[in-house]
Amino acid sequence: MLIPSLGIIGGMGPQAGIDVCGKIIAETVAQTDQEHLPFILFSFPESISDRTAFLKGQVATNPAHAIASLLLKMEDLGVEAACLACNTAHAPPIFDIIIKLLQNKQSKLELKNIVDETGLYIKKYHPEIKQLGILSTSGTYHSKLYNKLVSYKINPVYLCPSEQEKLHQAIYSKETGIKANAGIPVEGAKKTLYKKANSLIEMGAEAILLACTELPLVFTESCYMGKPLLDPSRILARAMIQAHAPSKIKPHGATIF
Amino acid sequence: MLIPSLGIIGGMGPQAGIDVCGKIIAETVAQTDQEHLPFILFSFPESISDRTAFLKGQVATNPAHAIASLLLKMEDLGVEAACLACNTAHAPPIFDIIIKLLQNKQSKLELKNIVDETGLYIKKYHPEIKQLGILSTSGTYHSKLYNKLVSYKINPVYLCPSEQEKLHQAIYSKETGIKANAGIPVEGAKKTLYKKANSLIEMGAEAILLACTELPLVFTESCYMGKPLLDPSRILARAMIQAHAPSKIKPHGATIF
Repeated sequence: MLIPSLGIIGGMGPQAGIDVCGKIIAETVAQTDQEHLPFILFSFPESISDRTAFLKGQVATNPAHAIASLLLKMEDLGVEAACLACNTAHAPPIFDIIIKLLQNKQSKLELKNIVDETGLYIKKYHPEIKQLGILSTSGTYHSKLYNKLVSYKINPVYLCPSEQEKLHQAIYSKETGIKANAGIPVEGAKKTLYKKANSLIEMGAEAILLACTELPLVFTESCYMGKPLLDPSRILARAMIQAHAPSKIKPHGATIF
Repeated sequence: MLIPSLGIIGGMGPQAGIDVCGKIIAETVAQTDQEHLPFILFSFPESISDRTAFLKGQVATNPAHAIASLLLKMEDLGVEAACLACNTAHAPPIFDIIIKLLQNKQSKLELKNIVDETGLYIKKYHPEIKQLGILSTSGTYHSKLYNKLVSYKINPVYLCPSEQEKLHQAIYSKETGIKANAGIPVEGAKKTLYKKANSLIEMGAEAILLACTELPLVFTESCYMGKPLLDPSRILARAMIQAHAPSKIKPHGATIF
């Protein structure tokens, strides 16, 4: 039984995997259950070492190995296009190794990259944006992952390290962080996130990139203080639909962005 | 690579599959990504024929065959306990065939049943409930799926057919139904659902079962008019955690029920 389908590597965190699946459903034109696209979600949180901890040198195992092995397993099941539901996993020390491991096995899997898809999306739908504020975990921040947007003529705007650390805690703190509260943001975490978005706007950001899958749980509208909010997970979900059934992708702006 | 894990058959509809996954995450005691449970979600909506249409005789193919084949594939991947994210798929003409097909292949998979888990849950946590009002789609209603609760000494209380049809429309109507409005219930639909819950209470219901995955979007508290609201999807999610890591299940009542 091989069903040509889409594959999502979740578990990084688990909620983020579901989030991308939900956005694939939300961005698909379908009037019945049966018209929705086929997909497989693998959520193996324990098997994949923490991305930020690896990038900081606190953990020796590169999560790339576990991720590549899950992707190859998906390919065996019929998956043709796949994605990683985690921004930090796209940092070159992880993502580039995944690509190499897939190539070593002669994989034909089309692995979407969240940064490239974001660059392509902005060029197509928001060509006026030159300064893009980045809200993310410290893993993504230190990896300077979104620096690659420069090749799309978009300058990423980052917080200073101490502000970034406060933002990271609003996501990761074991007491008040979004991750520890099953995706239900507590008031303190929300307030911190709004303050950090304000800082980026003061620094010239013309739009804000919600570059951590937990952030759209707090920023639920299409704009914040008049600046567009862009959700790379939703952009990635749209790229997945594009790969499998381009005629089924909703028009840009049909859903909240 | 075999990772002992949980399996969810989604796609019936796709949102319901994600819903059960989200509830497994929400009901798990975990402070880091890595502490969450491993699971696989298969969402193949096109491969599984419509459950209600099959039960009504409008479609000849029993969805049991596609479901059993997906479950066996999951077992090959290491899945030990699985569930179906769909009330209607538990109707005996479908569910019993799935069990038979699994037995034919000497499957060791533990397939949870949403009705039995609901019965066991009520016996354990709400033993006082003898009359249980059932809010559901007409597919679940006509299958009389929850009649099996009688074996747990719980009497299901149903709406009359004309009231049931109005309830179904509040979920399915292409203008005002919950499904057509991206899960954001419009006032008219809400009002209908409250009226139907009132009817069940007038008929003697001591608690209300939200036996359709869209209903908890309207009934967001743990009680309605002083009667407990029970969500079978959440009960099923808890049964999955119980099967894999009983020590990680949140105490009863820690989340909204």
